Amino acid sequence: MARVYNFSAGPSMLPLPVLERASREMVEYGSSGQSVMEMSHRSREYGEIIAHCEALLREVMAIPDNYKVLFLQGGASLQFSMVPLNLMTTGKADYVLTGQWAKKAIEEARKVGQVNVVASSQDKTYSYIPNIPREACDPQADYFYICYNNTIYGTAFQEVPDTGSVPLVADVSSCFLSEPMDVSRFGMLFAGAQKNFGPAGVVVAIIREDLIGHAREGIPTMLDYKTHADNDSMFNTPPTYAIYVCGLVLEWLKSLGGLSAMAAINREKAAILYDYLDSSSFFRGTVERNSRSLMNVPFVIGDADLEKKFIREAEAAGLVNLKGHRSVGGMRASIYNAMPVEGVRALVAFMKKFETDNR
Amino acid sequence: MARVYNFSAGPSMLPLPVLERASREMVEYGSSGQSVMEMSHRSREYGEIIAHCEALLREVMAIPDNYKVLFLQGGASLQFSMVPLNLMTTGKADYVLTGQWAKKAIEEARKVGQVNVVASSQDKTYSYIPNIPREACDPQADYFYICYNNTIYGTAFQEVPDTGSVPLVADVSSCFLSEPMDVSRFGMLFAGAQKNFGPAGVVVAIIREDLIGHAREGIPTMLDYKTHADNDSMFNTPPTYAIYVCGLVLEWLKSLGGLSAMAAINREKAAILYDYLDSSSFFRGTVERNSRSLMNVPFVIGDADLEKKFIREAEAAGLVNLKGHRSVGGMRASIYNAMPVEGVRALVAFMKKFETDNR
Repeated sequence: MARVYNFSAGPSMLPLPVLERASREMVEYGSSGQSVMEMSHRSREYGEIIAHCEALLREVMAIPDNYKVLFLQGGASLQFSMVPLNLMTTGKADYVLTGQWAKKAIEEARKVGQVNVVASSQDKTYSYIPNIPREACDPQADYFYICYNNTIYGTAFQEVPDTGSVPLVADVSSCFLSEPMDVSRFGMLFAGAQKNFGPAGVVVAIIREDLIGHAREGIPTMLDYKTHADNDSMFNTPPTYAIYVCGLVLEWLKSLGGLSAMAAINREKAAILYDYLDSSSFFRGTVERNSRSLMNVPFVIGDADLEKKFIREAEAAGLVNLKGHRSVGGMRASIYNAMPVEGVRALVAFMKKFETDNR
Repeated sequence: MARVYNFSAGPSMLPLPVLERASREMVEYGSSGQSVMEMSHRSREYGEIIAHCEALLREVMAIPDNYKVLFLQGGASLQFSMVPLNLMTTGKADYVLTGQWAKKAIEEARKVGQVNVVASSQDKTYSYIPNIPREACDPQADYFYICYNNTIYGTAFQEVPDTGSVPLVADVSSCFLSEPMDVSRFGMLFAGAQKNFGPAGVVVAIIREDLIGHAREGIPTMLDYKTHADNDSMFNTPPTYAIYVCGLVLEWLKSLGGLSAMAAINREKAAILYDYLDSSSFFRGTVERNSRSLMNVPFVIGDADLEKKFIREAEAAGLVNLKGHRSVGGMRASIYNAMPVEGVRALVAFMKKFETDNR
C-alpha cells in the first residue's frame, strides 16, 4: 500500500494512527460487541465517547468553563445563518470581507439584519488581511465577524483583533487546532471538522454561555444554539461516528504534545514551503508575506500549461489535490496537521526538480 | 469477538459484511492511496462514490426520473422545518398526529403557516394509526404530512394514504428500505440514515422536482432544497464518509435481492416476534394489530420490576438496547434490516425462558 500525500483543502489527510485504530475498532469497539456506528447515541458506551471527545477538546484548547462546546451538523455554511439568527439581537453586526467564505457569511447575515463591512481585501483577490480601521467599527454591534484563516486564498489573521466589548465571532474551520488560541478573546468560534479535526459532517461551535438563549423568535428549533446547549448536543441524533473519529484525532494531537507542539510542526512545514517559494524565480506565492496562512499555501507559475503539467506530474508522483481554487488559479498546497513534514519536503523536492526541468 | 444483537431504535445494527468492508477499506480505498474520509468531495474518486450511492438507491427503490435524491444533514429534525419552509407555498398543510416525531414536525410547521391536524391517535398513547376522515382533509393544502413508521410507538401505516392531488410528504426514517415503496405516490420522502441506511449524520430526501424551487424568500440558503438539488448535494461539503457507508449498505441490500427479498425477511422476523407475543399470556404487544410496524415492536409485562429484570438479563445474554421509550415504558425491539433472523429467534427464545422462570 502506498499512501499519497494529499494536499486537499478539505476533506483532507487524517493521521495514519487514527485511521488504523478506526479500522481495528470498526467491527467491535472495545468489548461492546458493536461498532461505534451501531451504538445508540443514548447508550452508556456512546455517552462516554462523546464526553471524552469534548473533555479532550476542552483540555487541548484550554477552553474556559463559561464556554459551551456544541457538536452540530450542516457545516460552516449553516453556521453562516445560525450566527446571525442567534447573535444578532439588536439587528446589526460588523463583518470583515476576506474571501468567499466571509462573503457567504455576509450574504446570510444580510437576510437577518444590517451588516457593516468594516474592511475588505476584495480589491486584490483577497490576497491579504486588511487593516481594520477602528473608526469603521460599531461599538454597538451585536458581534464582530471574521474568517480567521481563508482556505481558498491562503491568508490568515496573524493576531486576534481587539473588538473591545463587542463579541468576536470567528470561522476557524481551516486553522482549528493548528496552534494555541486564546478562546477567551472570542465570543464564539466554529469549525467544520473536515480539515484538522475529523471527517466531514460535524461542525464544532464553542460559544460563551451568555451569548446563548437570545435567538430570533420562531426560528427552526434546530437552528437555536440553546436547543443543542441544553441537550449536550443530543437534541437529536448527532453524527456519532464522526464525533468518535474527532476524539481519536484529539488523542493523537495530545500524544504529540498538544497545540504548542503541533504549532511548532506546522511552522516548520510552512517555513519549508514558503522559504522555497521566496527563493524561487519560477514559482511564486500569491499572498502578502504578513498575511500568510500556516495551513493553505497557494502558488503559481504564471503559465497555465505549465501549471496543468505540474499538477498532473505531481499527482503521478503521489502528491495529490494540488490544483488551486478556480478563483485564484495555479496551485494550492493545504498542509494541515495530519500532513507530515516529509510530505512537504517531498513537495518541495518535486517543485525543485520541476523548476529545473521546465525553467 | 462476540457481536451482540442490538435492538436499538437507532443508530442501530449495520450488516456485518458492511462493517468488515469499511474496516478493510479504512486506511486505503481501492488504489487511491487515501481513506474515503480523506478524499476531497470534489475529487473524481469521491464523485464516483456518491454517484454510485445515488444510482444504487434509485435502482433499489425504483425512484422515478422526475425525483431528486438529496443527501443532507441535520437529521429528520431539520426536515421538520425544511418541509414547511420549502413546500408551504400558500401557507397551509394537513398533518396526521401519530406520535412524538409527527408532533415535533407539526410544531415546526406551525412556525411557518397553518397546520390542520386531520387525524390523531394521541388518545391511546399513539398505539394505532388513525383513520383519516376524507372530510377533514383540505383539498387546497400545500401538502399532506405523515410519519410513516412511528419508531417510539411501533405503529406503521399499512398503505399509502390517497391524498388526491395534494402532495404526500412522509417521514420514513424508521422504515426506509425495509420493503418496496411506490415513490410515485409521494411528493417527498425523507429518512435519517441511522436505522436502515447507514451511520447517523446523513438524511436522504427524495423530492418530486416540481416541488423544488418555491421556498420562502429569505430563508437560509442551506435550508432551501433548490440549493442542494442544483449542486447535486455538493453545495457545501456533504457527510462524505457516511454517504460511502450508505453505498455499502445498498450493495449489501442489492446482493440479498433488493427490497422484495428484504421485505420477506423483515416479515418473517416480525412474524416470529408478533406470533410469540400473541401467544404469550406474560408479554403483551402494545400496538393494535392492524397498525403494527415491521421494524419496531414495543411490548410490556406490566410489572415494572420484572421489566427491569428482563432488560438487565437480556443485556447479559447479548440482547441489548431493549428498553422501551419512556413514553411507552416496558420494552421495545427494533428489528431493522441488519438484524438477522437468528437475532429475533434468540430474543424469542430468551423471552420464552424468562416467561417460564418468572411467571
